[in-house]
Amino acid sequence: MSGVLYGVGLGPGAPDLLTLRAARLVEGARVIAYPTLAGGASFARSIVADLIPDGAEEIVMDVPMTVERAPAQAAYDAGAARISEFLAGGRDVVCLCEGDPFFYGSFMYLFARLSGAFEVQVVPGVTSVTACAARAGLPLVARNERLTVLPGPLPEPELRARIEGAEALAIMKVGRHLPKIRALIADLGLLDRAVYVERVSLPDEVVCPLAEAPERAPYFSMILLTKGADPWL
Amino acid sequence: MSGVLYGVGLGPGAPDLLTLRAARLVEGARVIAYPTLAGGASFARSIVADLIPDGAEEIVMDVPMTVERAPAQAAYDAGAARISEFLAGGRDVVCLCEGDPFFYGSFMYLFARLSGAFEVQVVPGVTSVTACAARAGLPLVARNERLTVLPGPLPEPELRARIEGAEALAIMKVGRHLPKIRALIADLGLLDRAVYVERVSLPDEVVCPLAEAPERAPYFSMILLTKGADPWL
Ligand SMILES: C[S@@+](CC[C@H](N)C(=O)[O-])C[C@H]1O[C@@H](n2cnc3c(N)ncnc32)[C@H](O)[C@@H]1O
Ligand SMILES: C[S@@+](CC[C@H](N)C(=O)[O-])C[C@H]1O[C@@H](n2cnc3c(N)ncnc32)[C@H](O)[C@@H]1O
Repeated sequence: MSGVLYGVGLGPGAPDLLTLRAARLVEGARVIAYPTLAGGASFARSIVADLIPDGAEEIVMDVPMTVERAPAQAAYDAGAARISEFLAGGRDVVCLCEGDPFFYGSFMYLFARLSGAFEVQVVPGVTSVTACAARAGLPLVARNERLTVLPGPLPEPELRARIEGAEALAIMKVGRHLPKIRALIADLGLLDRAVYVERVSLPDEVVCPLAEAPERAPYFSMILLTKGADPWL
Repeated sequence: MSGVLYGVGLGPGAPDLLTLRAARLVEGARVIAYPTLAGGASFARSIVADLIPDGAEEIVMDVPMTVERAPAQAAYDAGAARISEFLAGGRDVVCLCEGDPFFYGSFMYLFARLSGAFEVQVVPGVTSVTACAARAGLPLVARNERLTVLPGPLPEPELRARIEGAEALAIMKVGRHLPKIRALIADLGLLDRAVYVERVSLPDEVVCPLAEAPERAPYFSMILLTKGADPWL
């Protein structure tokens, strides 16, 4: 019997925004896998550092940050190969995923490589989008409203068109694209409706109007924008 | 000192998809509030029925299902008034919310009424969107992809335009709109890319291709649609 691959969403960062199911799986894990970015520490691992059992084996996939895709693909190929050895040997593997695994999560690359051959169970997690909205006190969508989620690295003309066409909006992966996105939102006359959130739920989180956001944004940052005029009463 | 209003997301239905923070708040609650629809049972309450302490006071807001908004507004007005009595008396109130409170959640109506006068803390929860994707084995968005969330009750021409313009898509509040939405997706040639999910994470959940969905969908149902050609390898 092969083992099961668990893709476990851990939420946006605070250890108590883990689900009970995720906590139980991590606490019981014998083999744990997670990515690191360009040799840095693993954010996902840091969320559950206190729950990982002593003696659990750890499979680290170091993913280089290059513009070409091939080096990252090679890292996931190698990670998937190591994981599949454990699975084929009948051992379960718990893969740690920040936020939700299927929402811009790197687990998708392992899922694409391994779900044909092995049983995979995905445990959904709290996404950074609703975690940011909660902290910003910003109701996102009600009734028949639409929500659009955009990645900040999109080219400016596309971002502009999508922001214009959207009702409620979350812009992910802001990071070094902050100046471009902020200028665009200002140009569209929407600056006073936009909120900036950085490292939500962590001790050093930042929540402020986009107009007051710092010049440099870290990778774990997001912009939320709603256009409705308080339609919730 | 006034009490604090907690808007607590409980996830899509399975009791172990609650966050640790939500579980702790419900277990410690002395006053609990939740909506019921047209005299029915409360789905939110059912998720945490085993955690609610004996002797907790319960504020039930019965929301009528009418086309006009005034009766529902009156129900939230009355609920907010009762809740504010507890808050003004220095007692915390834990409001139960299925999924995430700020993602199509009825808590938004209480937030609009009470956040000006009282401290409100929102605890994000796992949304039905990522919970459905997890169970369907359907990675939603990666890299620079966009996600669009649409409510099924939107008029057909708008739904059509939004589905055509979308990359990855979640359609909420399917219910009695299922035949309309299915016909539309078929007409757009996307039927083989759409998945139907009903009552996700509950014992009677249904997950199947949209083409095989039952004729009648309950309120707690969703359609997921991705157009990418397995871009995740
Ligand atoms: C690769 S995506 C992963 C998203 C994650 N799977 C989720 O469900 O939220 C990384 C992006 O998510 C957002 N993000 C993740 N965690 C965050 C946090 N704690 N605070 C703010 N934004 C966050 C940022 O926009 C970041 O660039
Ligand atoms: C009023 S909205 C509430 C959404 C909720 N706040 C969330 O975060 O998912 C109700 C809609 O959510 C979706 N939904 C909620 N729970 C669900 C479940 N367990 N299975 C499938 N869809 C669900 C359905 O589309 C339903 O019509």
